[in-house]
Amino acid sequence: MSQKLRAAMIGGGPGSFIGAVHRIAARMDGDYELVAGAFSSKPEKCLETARELGIAEERASPSWAGMLESELALPADERVQVIMITTPNHVHAAPTIAALEAGFHVILDKPLCTSMEEARAMEAAAKSSKALFCLTHTYTGYPMIKEAKHQIASGALGTVRKIYVEYPQGWLSTYLEGGDHTQAAWRTDPTKSGKVGAMGDIGTHVFNLAEYVSGEEIVDVCAQLNTVVNGRALDDDGAVLFRTASGATGVLMATQIAAGEENNVKIRVFGEKGGLCWEHTDNNSLTLMPLDAPVVKLRTGGPGTSDWALANHRIPPGHPEGYLEAFANLYKNFAAHVRAHEAGKAQHPHLDYPGIEDGVRGMKFIEAIVANNAGNEKYTAL
Amino acid sequence: MSQKLRAAMIGGGPGSFIGAVHRIAARMDGDYELVAGAFSSKPEKCLETARELGIAEERASPSWAGMLESELALPADERVQVIMITTPNHVHAAPTIAALEAGFHVILDKPLCTSMEEARAMEAAAKSSKALFCLTHTYTGYPMIKEAKHQIASGALGTVRKIYVEYPQGWLSTYLEGGDHTQAAWRTDPTKSGKVGAMGDIGTHVFNLAEYVSGEEIVDVCAQLNTVVNGRALDDDGAVLFRTASGATGVLMATQIAAGEENNVKIRVFGEKGGLCWEHTDNNSLTLMPLDAPVVKLRTGGPGTSDWALANHRIPPGHPEGYLEAFANLYKNFAAHVRAHEAGKAQHPHLDYPGIEDGVRGMKFIEAIVANNAGNEKYTAL
Amino acid sequence: MSQKLRAAMIGGGPGSFIGAVHRIAARMDGDYELVAGAFSSKPEKCLETARELGIAEERASPSWAGMLESELALPADERVQVIMITTPNHVHAAPTIAALEAGFHVILDKPLCTSMEEARAMEAAAKSSKALFCLTHTYTGYPMIKEAKHQIASGALGTVRKIYVEYPQGWLSTYLEGGDHTQAAWRTDPTKSGKVGAMGDIGTHVFNLAEYVSGEEIVDVCAQLNTVVNGRALDDDGAVLFRTASGATGVLMATQIAAGEENNVKIRVFGEKGGLCWEHTDNNSLTLMPLDAPVVKLRTGGPGTSDWALANHRIPPGHPEGYLEAFANLYKNFAAHVRAHEAGKAQHPHLDYPGIEDGVRGMKFIEAIVANNAGNEKYTAL
Amino acid sequence: MSQKLRAAMIGGGPGSFIGAVHRIAARMDGDYELVAGAFSSKPEKCLETARELGIAEERASPSWAGMLESELALPADERVQVIMITTPNHVHAAPTIAALEAGFHVILDKPLCTSMEEARAMEAAAKSSKALFCLTHTYTGYPMIKEAKHQIASGALGTVRKIYVEYPQGWLSTYLEGGDHTQAAWRTDPTKSGKVGAMGDIGTHVFNLAEYVSGEEIVDVCAQLNTVVNGRALDDDGAVLFRTASGATGVLMATQIAAGEENNVKIRVFGEKGGLCWEHTDNNSLTLMPLDAPVVKLRTGGPGTSDWALANHRIPPGHPEGYLEAFANLYKNFAAHVRAHEAGKAQHPHLDYPGIEDGVRGMKFIEAIVANNAGNEKYTAL
Repeated sequence: MSQKLRAAMIGGGPGSFIGAVHRIAARMDGDYELVAGAFSSKPEKCLETARELGIAEERASPSWAGMLESELALPADERVQVIMITTPNHVHAAPTIAALEAGFHVILDKPLCTSMEEARAMEAAAKSSKALFCLTHTYTGYPMIKEAKHQIASGALGTVRKIYVEYPQGWLSTYLEGGDHTQAAWRTDPTKSGKVGAMGDIGTHVFNLAEYVSGEEIVDVCAQLNTVVNGRALDDDGAVLFRTASGATGVLMATQIAAGEENNVKIRVFGEKGGLCWEHTDNNSLTLMPLDAPVVKLRTGGPGTSDWALANHRIPPGHPEGYLEAFANLYKNFAAHVRAHEAGKAQHPHLDYPGIEDGVRGMKFIEAIVANNAGNEKYTAL
Repeated sequence: MSQKLRAAMIGGGPGSFIGAVHRIAARMDGDYELVAGAFSSKPEKCLETARELGIAEERASPSWAGMLESELALPADERVQVIMITTPNHVHAAPTIAALEAGFHVILDKPLCTSMEEARAMEAAAKSSKALFCLTHTYTGYPMIKEAKHQIASGALGTVRKIYVEYPQGWLSTYLEGGDHTQAAWRTDPTKSGKVGAMGDIGTHVFNLAEYVSGEEIVDVCAQLNTVVNGRALDDDGAVLFRTASGATGVLMATQIAAGEENNVKIRVFGEKGGLCWEHTDNNSLTLMPLDAPVVKLRTGGPGTSDWALANHRIPPGHPEGYLEAFANLYKNFAAHVRAHEAGKAQHPHLDYPGIEDGVRGMKFIEAIVANNAGNEKYTAL
Repeated sequence: MSQKLRAAMIGGGPGSFIGAVHRIAARMDGDYELVAGAFSSKPEKCLETARELGIAEERASPSWAGMLESELALPADERVQVIMITTPNHVHAAPTIAALEAGFHVILDKPLCTSMEEARAMEAAAKSSKALFCLTHTYTGYPMIKEAKHQIASGALGTVRKIYVEYPQGWLSTYLEGGDHTQAAWRTDPTKSGKVGAMGDIGTHVFNLAEYVSGEEIVDVCAQLNTVVNGRALDDDGAVLFRTASGATGVLMATQIAAGEENNVKIRVFGEKGGLCWEHTDNNSLTLMPLDAPVVKLRTGGPGTSDWALANHRIPPGHPEGYLEAFANLYKNFAAHVRAHEAGKAQHPHLDYPGIEDGVRGMKFIEAIVANNAGNEKYTAL
Repeated sequence: MSQKLRAAMIGGGPGSFIGAVHRIAARMDGDYELVAGAFSSKPEKCLETARELGIAEERASPSWAGMLESELALPADERVQVIMITTPNHVHAAPTIAALEAGFHVILDKPLCTSMEEARAMEAAAKSSKALFCLTHTYTGYPMIKEAKHQIASGALGTVRKIYVEYPQGWLSTYLEGGDHTQAAWRTDPTKSGKVGAMGDIGTHVFNLAEYVSGEEIVDVCAQLNTVVNGRALDDDGAVLFRTASGATGVLMATQIAAGEENNVKIRVFGEKGGLCWEHTDNNSLTLMPLDAPVVKLRTGGPGTSDWALANHRIPPGHPEGYLEAFANLYKNFAAHVRAHEAGKAQHPHLDYPGIEDGVRGMKFIEAIVANNAGNEKYTAL
């Protein structure tokens, strides 16, 4: 690498969880330098974060539009190149579109936005922009998830038959939004989160993971969305039966009221010739279960893993990498693409990251489960 | 104990898996003596098994009805007291009803039978008989399942909100019934297995487990039944969304095409105040996940476990018990009840075992999921 | 099988842990019928156990010598064939020798005895007797331990380089023998247990396991024996560095003061070409770690396991077997040998069980570590 | 934070494993800016790394002494503040002493050096310097290791009785140093590694971990050092029995010939009132085993963890952190100390890191095991 990519962040002010994660991810491999930001719409808070991060005050603005404008006014070799957007869902579409139209590369936190209308506008902006777009579906950044995708894509399981994905969390088991919990407040507020709560926040993660790993396209869904905690305005729990274009079926479970559970994302895929399993609590392992042969455990960086997985880790096997490294893989791979793109070159397919199509698929999933849940039909097409 | 209970087996001839399991379970705690049997409808095979088991030839018959008749002709203190029935599903109702009507206690392998009509007749026979009836839903025999039931019944989780049960197997991933695989042949044959395949064979196990552990009554279901392997006559895979009388919801997954999976039954229940998890691969542990407190791991025979769990194991903690011990708990507890019953006494509630009601519930579940799967309504009541 | 082997038990009266285990093991596969016993030297207690077990009073005696004598007086086809000895260590040698000399087969709980003198006398008796002898080193009965031995014997690891065995327990973390704890009392009493406490009770188990699995012969030891709990008369903790005849080395750890630990026996063996690991808490798995290839997990009854392992389990993979089944394997295999022996035939090598040589090795180990611990030399030869 | 600390690296050129780790650790929390380096004594390689890292050529030098000199010539507010030393062991003492004497803070990779003479000189330099010194014993940076230390320090286990530490690796199972493996070459070369191989490379890690977590001081050792692979010049395997000042005992195992093992550092400590266990493969968990109460599992960031652990992680529970985060904790905590130190303030004790004393202890350990291994005495004092 020669020069770091200059980056600005929208969101990520005091109290933000995911803003801090994005910043660590951006720093980890030395590809980015955060030099500007619209960290909060409150001037005081925006400045507070700017100071903490050692960012010049003149490059911090409480208005993301103002910040973009200021950057555009700078010479090209000073101006930021990448915009990192970590705001609540209702502030995803506008800054993404504006940034893409202005030629900035964008890294956006998931889910894409709050409606299909926004999604289509964002898709149009992404397609017409000369800049690149990344949606941070973190779990696709894990090396052993890359390996799982590789195993299935290379035929190790044969035809895919069954997909189980689940995302149990317990942190919304009580009416947290009744207090002053910033995270809980916006994530359970339809005006900020969109039509769904848990299904948008974590359901889209495992929907994306199911399609990414299996290579299958989910075509219809039968959904049960529940609002378990009294007073809550959006779903905090749900399960979905689904079918894929090729005739496989699956189950998706996402809940934020699994009291005592942390964040145990899990995917299992079974095909004609075997199955595989990956769990977040043991993220550096991938369990392969061939039909009529013993179980094999692949490990991050270990023997028998593919070039794809090996391209997405840093240190020797036995030195556990985790969530921040997976997140950083999205940033690292995006940086590689941005540099190749700007040099007019193709980038290696193993350095992949989720894009606008993943975001649009997620919004279609949300629309379909909301419609299905509201009616009495068994299945609703995506 | 003074005297062993004299027992006869119907089924369990050469090639039977579950017949051998019942015999080990009956032997383990020294409560039963197998002295008669109708092991196979083929005279040769019946005798072969009788000889292997050291059973007098005159007490072995290829006809279960004939065997019951012969036993009734013996003096009461020689005659068998308990009939163990381990035949395929379509030979459950008739011998059970005949045995109960003749005053024999019955231990029957699950599921109860092949239709609601049979189920109602069996229920009537059980209720009018002075003899006792046990259905071998094995998983309820595990000490840590007793503990799970105890924890929920005693309020440790508060109101139950979510139930996940799953039973993934892979042994029917190929068209085994096309060969000479006895087990596969009858279990995938509608004339022997009933209206369902996987859902009857293993789905009823986890349905029973869900209700047993949670204390909830499942009231309606939304089912997806799949026949994945070409040529198969019954479902080999399925998933069910369900709701309970108290307003909890859940997901039930049962599959026999999870290539590479063994038999990993799992149940998770989440309530207002915490969750719990039990898995077959680690059957001597029960994980408690209290809200806002660290995870606690209870162990068979270990500190902090209830009298209920302690009444259902044999050896000190750290000496793993397994499937055969869980199965033997049903036999042991049934023997205790038979003895108390014959002495006109009540038996301790911790020595419980599944009965006719569990069997009828299982059949209602089957009827409901078959109906739901055939139609386009979202939910079908049990 | 035609007839059950008639058996008598010495020891195993009220309060005995291991006596009950031996009885379940003997019952599990239907090979033995317990018809006589000297369960306790106290007449009342002996009768109490006899009654509980449904044993005729005339075949129960508080004197083991008297019991043997009575049995010898019976006709050969009524007389017991196998003597199960489950007394404290100081009552191992005399009844074993008497029984063997009288022509009874003997199953004896470990360790063999309390001194090398006794050990040599027992060895002589076993070698000159026409009867067979089994020492219940339970852990060698686990199917995945058989598999481990098979893997190493068949060269999967290449030359053995390193052996780690450990046996951590916590039940003697306090001065239990100060109260009325029967088990603690004799196991910490030099007049009943012998020269060592923990090292005899559990150290010999892992010493045996190390030699059995690895096929190596331990030739010298460097030992640290500790008496951690105040007032205790014998070691309750220790560790041993050892070397084998072929030049491998290893570490043996055994402790009964690992507060909070249950019974987690573990063995790891590493060779030129890979390693393997087995743990009691996951006894149905064997982890193979080939050099430069992914980890493989073999499972009881599962694909890829050897005939040896398959000959030592009962039920399909995924139906966990445990401690009682491992113990029962010793009984089952011994029964097969006794029957073959009496029929003048050889028995299959896969139905193996520990014998007198294992017992003598264990006593040599005890002598060597006691001597080494007392002196200041680095190593002491066995 | 206001300004990043300016840092230079000595070592870490092409092919270095640990140099890259140090750089990621330094970047992760945004506390350091790498602006200078003596990455390799070969000018070409030094420049290659400088270019990759975007470091100005004039601040890169093949001579560490030259680099230090150049930096000293710069104005104080441009000059580097921290020297990161990641060279092989024989190039630890000289640059550390020179840097400390020149007033630079030093972060040095472990072990401290190659002899007690060097160690004493470094200790003197550290004590007389106004600058700070950190030795990167990475494992002490894990949040759940901090928690383990806290639990023991706060009396949760009562008096410590037994300590087991182990570090099994398999990467040196073959004669790698015979090829062109940079890492293997210097680590097995006495002129670069010092008097020991495995025991210096990884044995000192677990020695440090044992003392750090338990709070015990190891006073004597009984060691077995082995050179297993033919042709190797240093130990590649070993085990140590040890005793502590307070009368506890323990076992330390370190091996690099455990074929198939990755890097599974493990520590178990048992006291009067319970035990605890931590394993590298599950680094975000700490298992507490109280005497006579159920096992409790603490998790990074989870409920029930101490302020100490909470001060050493970044993201919510369930988002796994790993080796790089643990390493980064050393850097983060050192930065906090440097800033407090320069501001004349005390830093919070929870932001601790290993220092010169840890390094000296490690060297004493090496001297003692080498002496003990060479002789025939049972124990050698540290």
